[in-house]
Amino acid sequence: MNSINELRPVYVEDGKVMMIDQNLLPMELKILEITDYKMMVQAIKDMWVRGAPAIGISGAAGIYLAARENISLQNDSFLQEMERAFTELGESRPTAVNLFWALKKMRIIFDRIVLNDDFQSQNGPIKSKLVDELRCETERIADEDIKMCIAIGNYGATLIEDGDGILTHCNAGGLATGGYGTALGVIRSAHREGKKIHVYVDETRPRLQGARLTAWELDQESIPFTLISDNQAAYFMRKGVVQKAVTGADRISSNGDVANKIGTYSVAVLCKEHSIPFFVAAPFSTFDMNLTDGDQIPIEQRSSEEITEIYPPSDFYNRIKTANPAFDITSSKYVTAFFTEGGIIYPPYVSGIMNMVGKRHQE
Amino acid sequence: MNSINELRPVYVEDGKVMMIDQNLLPMELKILEITDYKMMVQAIKDMWVRGAPAIGISGAAGIYLAARENISLQNDSFLQEMERAFTELGESRPTAVNLFWALKKMRIIFDRIVLNDDFQSQNGPIKSKLVDELRCETERIADEDIKMCIAIGNYGATLIEDGDGILTHCNAGGLATGGYGTALGVIRSAHREGKKIHVYVDETRPRLQGARLTAWELDQESIPFTLISDNQAAYFMRKGVVQKAVTGADRISSNGDVANKIGTYSVAVLCKEHSIPFFVAAPFSTFDMNLTDGDQIPIEQRSSEEITEIYPPSDFYNRIKTANPAFDITSSKYVTAFFTEGGIIYPPYVSGIMNMVGKRHQE
Repeated sequence: MNSINELRPVYVEDGKVMMIDQNLLPMELKILEITDYKMMVQAIKDMWVRGAPAIGISGAAGIYLAARENISLQNDSFLQEMERAFTELGESRPTAVNLFWALKKMRIIFDRIVLNDDFQSQNGPIKSKLVDELRCETERIADEDIKMCIAIGNYGATLIEDGDGILTHCNAGGLATGGYGTALGVIRSAHREGKKIHVYVDETRPRLQGARLTAWELDQESIPFTLISDNQAAYFMRKGVVQKAVTGADRISSNGDVANKIGTYSVAVLCKEHSIPFFVAAPFSTFDMNLTDGDQIPIEQRSSEEITEIYPPSDFYNRIKTANPAFDITSSKYVTAFFTEGGIIYPPYVSGIMNMVGKRHQE
Repeated sequence: MNSINELRPVYVEDGKVMMIDQNLLPMELKILEITDYKMMVQAIKDMWVRGAPAIGISGAAGIYLAARENISLQNDSFLQEMERAFTELGESRPTAVNLFWALKKMRIIFDRIVLNDDFQSQNGPIKSKLVDELRCETERIADEDIKMCIAIGNYGATLIEDGDGILTHCNAGGLATGGYGTALGVIRSAHREGKKIHVYVDETRPRLQGARLTAWELDQESIPFTLISDNQAAYFMRKGVVQKAVTGADRISSNGDVANKIGTYSVAVLCKEHSIPFFVAAPFSTFDMNLTDGDQIPIEQRSSEEITEIYPPSDFYNRIKTANPAFDITSSKYVTAFFTEGGIIYPPYVSGIMNMVGKRHQE
């Protein structure tokens, strides 16, 4: 990995699944091998990896690992173990639709082979073939994700102007995707096109993905930025130094409501009040065409310790009530446009999303 | 101090100036004697005490201490030292108008005595009288502040309804005032009147006054609350569990623009979007009738370490650019009403504030 271009949070190399432990950034860039699917489930739960597309790739890689580690089991046990892996990986994070999408892609490969008559007769060789195909599918999902991100970034950058101050929230960067990033892909593309931009990075409580990851990625690429606490965003908007806001998304319903990191909705409302365009950058796979609106998206409630761990140690914080919804819903009316790998979607969204995303999903 | 009623962040007792080191809350309630004015300047700078009214009382106490410690100096040196104390205390925090107001009250006592002919002739006895009068004035400022807060709280509570969810930001509590609090005074009064309320407490980055102080005060008084990160406020508003928001103020211009802790403006905008009344609770002394609008209020820019100190230790954070405006300005158009010790002020504010506050300032 010799440039940020090739920064990948999770990837397959020589058959090995490698992952950056993002909890250690920006102090240390540590890349570890994930050796089995249970380790992958734990890595996803412990948020070594986060961001919907990167979780999707991780889920796919988990299925590949599960097949590899169980290759010598008898068919019945093998199928049982694989079902367990599909279930546990599917339950490792509740909000990211890309996870379900990636597992579905893996399921198609999986079913095609295990439902074949040869599966009963051949045992060994066909399981090797299955493992190979699951590995290839994982690599394909990851590679396609980078290509998608570059497309998203290039489309989005057409709406970024020279001199823009751009606010972003959380990390929708190379670290959250196969590489390159969605929201940060837009910023990256604008920067590479030579546009002079300045990024305002919300620190993004409670897990500080902005301070830890987005700031680190921008610094790696020498894109000028200022790190701010979330509650300063309105101050800088009022000051007139923010011209655009762009975030990623964890899940988007078919009418354009956006589930994303807690605090995104706040940014969107503040943008509306200051007449600042609010853009959402996300691949087709983030759109969930089965949902008619955002209120159908379940919101993950995470542990209170994520909030309280930065406080001075005190029994007080174990005793009091602390809320920690990890995501919020931004109604589509706050979204100026979506940047996708197929182009830019403007309102009205029900038809715009159906035309661009819905058709692709049906392919 | 046997009940929250009597909680005072800074007070004079048997001639001693006592102060809670609020940096240690909620872990430890430590009350220390402030022995001289330089220690007071440092305590204000180090934020042992914060909140405009409490800083005002601290400034007054600092003048009393300066007179006391220099009592045996010759007149010329005494006056020189006192001028130094007035200057240094006046410069200890830039935003809090109460500080200037309290110092002005002390200056009136001071001038009345030192400009008197007796000052030249009597030396010893008159300096003792001066010290006594400065101590009395400090006690009076503190006592009046509690009375004002109770009045503010009782007026404000008339607009709080049984069952309300109330969002507050930072700490405008007993700890920020002589006692009882302004925004928390409203909550306290509503609670004591038997109204069933639930408070949503913004943690208030970067210094976490909500998490450390407001949560602690509410817990002491057994008022139900949930501690949230600042960027969750919009989520709970959208969910419909927040019916009112109330904050304090550090300085209010004559047209009703409010300078308060960074993040207040964000809360106000979010309230507007959700049709939630946004109230500001503040005594007359917080209104600065010399300012025609909020843009004339200087915004204190504090050190980046306040932002970065909660991050994992890394040279990275010493190197990158981090902003830290400590306050923001909320335009009066976002304020539903002001709660003062003289009653509730509704729009239009230029006349409303002039009628209630301007006249009192002229008295």
